[in-house]
Amino acid sequence: MLDCIIVGSGVAGISAALTLQSNQKSFLLFGSWSISEKVSKAEKIHNYPGLSDVSGVEFCEALKTQLKEAKIDVKEEKVAGVYALKDKFTVMTQEGNTYESRTVILACGVESVKQIEGEAEFVGRGVSYCATCDGFLYKGKTIAVFCTTKRLEHEIGYLADIAEKVYLIPMYKDVQIQRDNVTIIRKMPTKIDGGLRVNTLRFAAPPAEDIPAELPINGMFMLRECVSPAILVGGLETADGHVVVGRDMSTNLKGCFAAGDCTGRPYQYAKAVGEGNVAAHAVSEYLK
Amino acid sequence: MLDCIIVGSGVAGISAALTLQSNQKSFLLFGSWSISEKVSKAEKIHNYPGLSDVSGVEFCEALKTQLKEAKIDVKEEKVAGVYALKDKFTVMTQEGNTYESRTVILACGVESVKQIEGEAEFVGRGVSYCATCDGFLYKGKTIAVFCTTKRLEHEIGYLADIAEKVYLIPMYKDVQIQRDNVTIIRKMPTKIDGGLRVNTLRFAAPPAEDIPAELPINGMFMLRECVSPAILVGGLETADGHVVVGRDMSTNLKGCFAAGDCTGRPYQYAKAVGEGNVAAHAVSEYLK
Repeated sequence: MLDCIIVGSGVAGISAALTLQSNQKSFLLFGSWSISEKVSKAEKIHNYPGLSDVSGVEFCEALKTQLKEAKIDVKEEKVAGVYALKDKFTVMTQEGNTYESRTVILACGVESVKQIEGEAEFVGRGVSYCATCDGFLYKGKTIAVFCTTKRLEHEIGYLADIAEKVYLIPMYKDVQIQRDNVTIIRKMPTKIDGGLRVNTLRFAAPPAEDIPAELPINGMFMLRECVSPAILVGGLETADGHVVVGRDMSTNLKGCFAAGDCTGRPYQYAKAVGEGNVAAHAVSEYLK
Repeated sequence: MLDCIIVGSGVAGISAALTLQSNQKSFLLFGSWSISEKVSKAEKIHNYPGLSDVSGVEFCEALKTQLKEAKIDVKEEKVAGVYALKDKFTVMTQEGNTYESRTVILACGVESVKQIEGEAEFVGRGVSYCATCDGFLYKGKTIAVFCTTKRLEHEIGYLADIAEKVYLIPMYKDVQIQRDNVTIIRKMPTKIDGGLRVNTLRFAAPPAEDIPAELPINGMFMLRECVSPAILVGGLETADGHVVVGRDMSTNLKGCFAAGDCTGRPYQYAKAVGEGNVAAHAVSEYLK
């Protein structure tokens, strides 16, 4: 069994990984070799000690080089759920694999796009965060897909293969998907509604001439770069969308730590790096 | 009046300064252009994100360059005391200057050399941390001087000009001071003792042939790279020698924040950088 699983390859996750490596712990770092969309988009970083006015792209390159030199791999699977068991954690990925570890560090960032009203209420009752996990439930049905990043567009394709009708609400420009059964809506919905299950997506006004303000749907997929930690980990204590942590980055769940933007403001590289480091030390301490 | 005074030019202080500069706050950064003895002594730093296997000297150079590019000056005075008044702070330096600010960030590091028994008890009653502040009290008297770093050797010279007899206990090699009235002792004292005031420095055994295990002294100077925050700031809450802080790096004193090693373990650059950043954001928030 692994000593630790790190969820997220932003600066907090990388900081934790470097320190766990120094401490000779076994771990997996889940994320992407493109490191972090948020970091790479930064124009200039003025207040990161040691790197004068570095660009986000340069910072990402430096981090990638550092990981490779330290022989740390980034596991390019998307974590779908973290389950706290008696004295270990089981981590399931959207790719359908499971991994076990004694501790977990959540470094999954924070989603800048807010939740839609009704989203949390209907999780598991028509609202899903994982195309490959739940897509098969919507064979021949009508679904809406809210997608915040082009990097997840392949998941929309996967859903369009299954569902009869897909309403796509993209939060990015340059949408490339072209399918007869995919209609793009460029308006933000106001509410996900339903009874026992989701049945309606509401808009403030009809989003297009042929689309009603109360759009009938069977399911709603939320494809986001970051899944909310509270949704990822059952029983995790959060406040205002952030994981509640102590000074040692411990959460309310024994063996589960958190670091970086997911623990709250300021959303800063320096803070994330510091918290990743502290979380890794706390993990090492915990494993004793 | 300044928005903030930062005490300490290690990585925590520099991180705070860079962020206060970004936030367009007025501040002074007290410390040294040689940055931090602790950083410069590091052989290789393996786990600081963005800089692969950098040496301490290289890291210091990068920080110096960054400060200069950001037009941040390091005020090379040694802070002797921080006084919390109603809604501002007065900072006094050993050079005899006073400065005022609305907030303070303590980033003064942690002294690796432990306190000597009796040290805290006799502060202000024979134990002093500042040669230039209290030296004149010992004209023609016998004093002991405990000194952790060669960088403070000039203060020993200053004291030797005033006192009749100086017992020097250096914690560094290559002592250069040569005065007839200075005797070097290469043993660690076990206790500072006295009645109303300090009168004896105790050793486990006679430290040299002609020096007794119970050495009569009139005063004891502790010359350290870092002064304990609790001694620097009256009324500051500490635990086990560390400043007690919240998640936003606030202390028990309104407007007084702390960051870096002085807040506790792990003593790591990444942690210090993160805390300096958070403290600077908390200062900006507080000033609103």
